[in-house]
Amino acid sequence: MTFHLHSQLEKDCISIGRLALCRLLLMNDKQFPWFILVPEIEEITEIFQLNKQQRGLLIEESSYLAERLKTLYKADKINIAAIGNLVPQLHVHHVVRYHSDKAWPAPVWGKFSAIPYSGQNLQIQ
Amino acid sequence: MTFHLHSQLEKDCISIGRLALCRLLLMNDKQFPWFILVPEIEEITEIFQLNKQQRGLLIEESSYLAERLKTLYKADKINIAAIGNLVPQLHVHHVVRYHSDKAWPAPVWGKFSAIPYSGQNLQIQ
Repeated sequence: MTFHLHSQLEKDCISIGRLALCRLLLMNDKQFPWFILVPEIEEITEIFQLNKQQRGLLIEESSYLAERLKTLYKADKINIAAIGNLVPQLHVHHVVRYHSDKAWPAPVWGKFSAIPYSGQNLQIQ
Repeated sequence: MTFHLHSQLEKDCISIGRLALCRLLLMNDKQFPWFILVPEIEEITEIFQLNKQQRGLLIEESSYLAERLKTLYKADKINIAAIGNLVPQLHVHHVVRYHSDKAWPAPVWGKFSAIPYSGQNLQIQ
């Protein structure tokens, strides 16, 4: 089955890459460095619906991403979550958090409206 | 190194079991069926600090738990998250969610003060 990214993720995010299992998205919200992994498998809403090999890939890709974000952004914490109450397609949030950020210590979900990047401050390298 | 559960998790939760990697806790909040997996490894704050074998165990234990919670509670969604902004010891939330619950569709973290179970409605089988 061909994989289609959910229209809400298409709308809210910028697609920046692909790993073995997942598409890597950047949430278009400059308030937080916020990345999302979406396994490119149709009709999956919960992690347990992936097969064991896919689950292994997911946690490895998530950990690869989280470790690099921690270093690159000098993060105080990485918040990782599969929520999916509004967008059913399985997607895993990875949010770079600082003690000084505007939501700390609360989670970021549902807190603030997104403030999109402008062309100048979005440079994919 | 001997593993010690963080004092805040001791205070907020009821220890109900052990899997190969993780201790299984029940959040003492009767508003949501809310379970927490804590890898019994000292000084881990991020999933990527576990080794690959431990990460494999974590996602399998998480998926085992999530699938059973989904069935047992006839859940609409399972919310899974490693946040850790307040309690640094790595712990992974698994929250049973319903379209009709008091926080839906928002995540539950930081929303409501816990309402503990009474002796009568907490029966471990």
